[in-house]
Amino acid sequence: MKATGIVVEYNPFHNGHLHHLKQSQIQTSSDITIAVMSGNFLQRGEPALVDKWTRAKMALDAGVDLIVELPYAFATAQASDFAKGAIFLLDALKCDTFCFGSEEGSIASFEHTYNLLSSKKLEYNEAISQFVKQGISYPKALNEAYKSISRFSEEPLVDLSKPNNILGFHYLEAARQLNSPIQPATIQRVVANYHDDARETESIASATGIRKVLFEEKELSKVHSFLPSTSIAGLEHWLEHAESFGSWERFYPLLRLIILRQNKKSIAKYAEVTEGIENAIWNAAVKNEHFQPFMEQIKSKRFTWTRIQRMLTHIYTDFTWDQLRAIEYPTYIRPLAMSSSGQAYLQSIKKDLQLPLVSRVAASKENILLQLDIKAANLYYLGLQTNYGASMVGSDFRQIPFRQ
Amino acid sequence: MKATGIVVEYNPFHNGHLHHLKQSQIQTSSDITIAVMSGNFLQRGEPALVDKWTRAKMALDAGVDLIVELPYAFATAQASDFAKGAIFLLDALKCDTFCFGSEEGSIASFEHTYNLLSSKKLEYNEAISQFVKQGISYPKALNEAYKSISRFSEEPLVDLSKPNNILGFHYLEAARQLNSPIQPATIQRVVANYHDDARETESIASATGIRKVLFEEKELSKVHSFLPSTSIAGLEHWLEHAESFGSWERFYPLLRLIILRQNKKSIAKYAEVTEGIENAIWNAAVKNEHFQPFMEQIKSKRFTWTRIQRMLTHIYTDFTWDQLRAIEYPTYIRPLAMSSSGQAYLQSIKKDLQLPLVSRVAASKENILLQLDIKAANLYYLGLQTNYGASMVGSDFRQIPFRQ
Repeated sequence: MKATGIVVEYNPFHNGHLHHLKQSQIQTSSDITIAVMSGNFLQRGEPALVDKWTRAKMALDAGVDLIVELPYAFATAQASDFAKGAIFLLDALKCDTFCFGSEEGSIASFEHTYNLLSSKKLEYNEAISQFVKQGISYPKALNEAYKSISRFSEEPLVDLSKPNNILGFHYLEAARQLNSPIQPATIQRVVANYHDDARETESIASATGIRKVLFEEKELSKVHSFLPSTSIAGLEHWLEHAESFGSWERFYPLLRLIILRQNKKSIAKYAEVTEGIENAIWNAAVKNEHFQPFMEQIKSKRFTWTRIQRMLTHIYTDFTWDQLRAIEYPTYIRPLAMSSSGQAYLQSIKKDLQLPLVSRVAASKENILLQLDIKAANLYYLGLQTNYGASMVGSDFRQIPFRQ
Repeated sequence: MKATGIVVEYNPFHNGHLHHLKQSQIQTSSDITIAVMSGNFLQRGEPALVDKWTRAKMALDAGVDLIVELPYAFATAQASDFAKGAIFLLDALKCDTFCFGSEEGSIASFEHTYNLLSSKKLEYNEAISQFVKQGISYPKALNEAYKSISRFSEEPLVDLSKPNNILGFHYLEAARQLNSPIQPATIQRVVANYHDDARETESIASATGIRKVLFEEKELSKVHSFLPSTSIAGLEHWLEHAESFGSWERFYPLLRLIILRQNKKSIAKYAEVTEGIENAIWNAAVKNEHFQPFMEQIKSKRFTWTRIQRMLTHIYTDFTWDQLRAIEYPTYIRPLAMSSSGQAYLQSIKKDLQLPLVSRVAASKENILLQLDIKAANLYYLGLQTNYGASMVGSDFRQIPFRQ
């Protein structure tokens, strides 16, 4: 069986994801699709709209054969570590190909870009330091440095100011650095801009746009046109039980408590907190009753919005620099959901797996990364502040994968 | 002016407190009464029903001339440290006398008891260790040890199984150990039992009984008969704004979050957490959605209910063994409310004060004990989980004493 891997958050699974899923199956002539999916906290440093089990179920219902969890430590990391963790798992799962959506759409351009940056590493890093010293954010510095070395290439390159191109580049980089035989492929995204608002006259909108409508209109029907029926059912089922979607606005009173429990200095111990921003975080927490103004008070041009949100995620989950630095690669494969083909595939590769397959956490509870996932799940459920959330604490420890 | 000191929690101020206040004024022929009052967390290891400012205002309205805050580190400590902090402050405030309510009612008995325990210290401590080794709770061990050495005395002694007698003993002990000229006095409590239920046909009930009715009946009118009108007004005013009383049942979802953010081992760093109880606390937090069953799961005969609650208070406020051990005595006098006589008195002793007088925290923010009070206030308001609570974060830092 030929397996194609994809890296997803599905927050929530929408028509654009469905398009990517189908296209990647066609383009790579694969028999099954394996998704490495983030857990309850995401790469933008946010709690997911709905928990990982509900998102895994929606993915399964939409046609993904196997959904495995990207551990918290990678799912909430900056792009390069996020990509490293994800590609490592797809490689461990013996995928032939991994296929990502990008603004670019041509895998050759990614390869040219990777080759250029590898051969001009010294110049690139030097340029980055120069731009960072000028006080601009790290992503902007990367972009400026990249522009400055682009002149060395005669081949078409990828525009690395686009978010999906950046991720795609890191996927390719991770695969090369792992010396993995996994082959890269890309599909052009249908939605041009990541942050586009969701327009009801169309059938495809970005997940960001969909979430925005959901939080503003507070009505699921307003986003029906962007979602396959399987996702509508999944989200309806979630709301019926959980009463609320996950969001920072929702979690903020708890984040605020956690910040104000500590003195300013000790906040610097959390992963990604750096350069004295702990003071700004603490001061903003004293002053603000809501998440948006809290963030606006912290925001400066040194840090992107998502970088700050990742710091907050780590503060919320008690994930420190020490823990971050001790982590290298995923240490287990945890399936969240699988079709009969997905189960057959897992069965066929089982004896060659280099990582333990965790289908019931209780049996392998000493694993540090896994404990982090369990903790993140508990804190996600508590963050909802509903009876359902309170009742779900401890459940991730016992939950076994959905099978179809 | 002759000043009498009292040590109070006023949670809430009721007719029994009023009786004690009037009687102590008469018995000690004092011109003014100074109360050292706990802040937002109390000696039984609980959040107060209403915040310290509301409680101070109720005390002022009922006739106390000066209310100063007992810092968090003492207010939430075991009886001997609680007493040490309180008597230290009354001594610093140049009180002539301190007057406490007790089941005993005779100060001579307290003095005999103190003299006996001082002269038989070795035997007493030896007996305590023996009983603790048998696995009974510390308070019970104290009591048994005390019984066993009572035979050395021919004078009447205090029954140290009664909660107010225990506190009274520690007040006297603290005064002696400070070599303070402050004179002890006691008044017999009208309510015989500390934990008595509040019966509506009577005018005096314990604060515990009153709180029980308030939480069960959720109606202020049910406890009117036990409260002076000033307290009814104060509690009504609080409820109108704050929407909720403080209680562990209310704060529990936040405590649960804080516990489950950490691994079991790290919970052992909090003050009073000992002998592996951190495991029981963590396990109970995973399992229980409400405070009462959570406590019942932790409870064992090794620890009293209030001892466990004090641990939880320290976990909630991030107060560690290291911090506890570094603290000796209060380092400031912080008035919360004062009558014109109270102000005149403070004015008259101001130049002889050995401790800084803090009427606006912003001016002395580096003080560690004071920072703890401010933090405890922020966390108390957040614990309420109401809009009012969220809006009051940061207010304790700016609030100046009530003046009448």
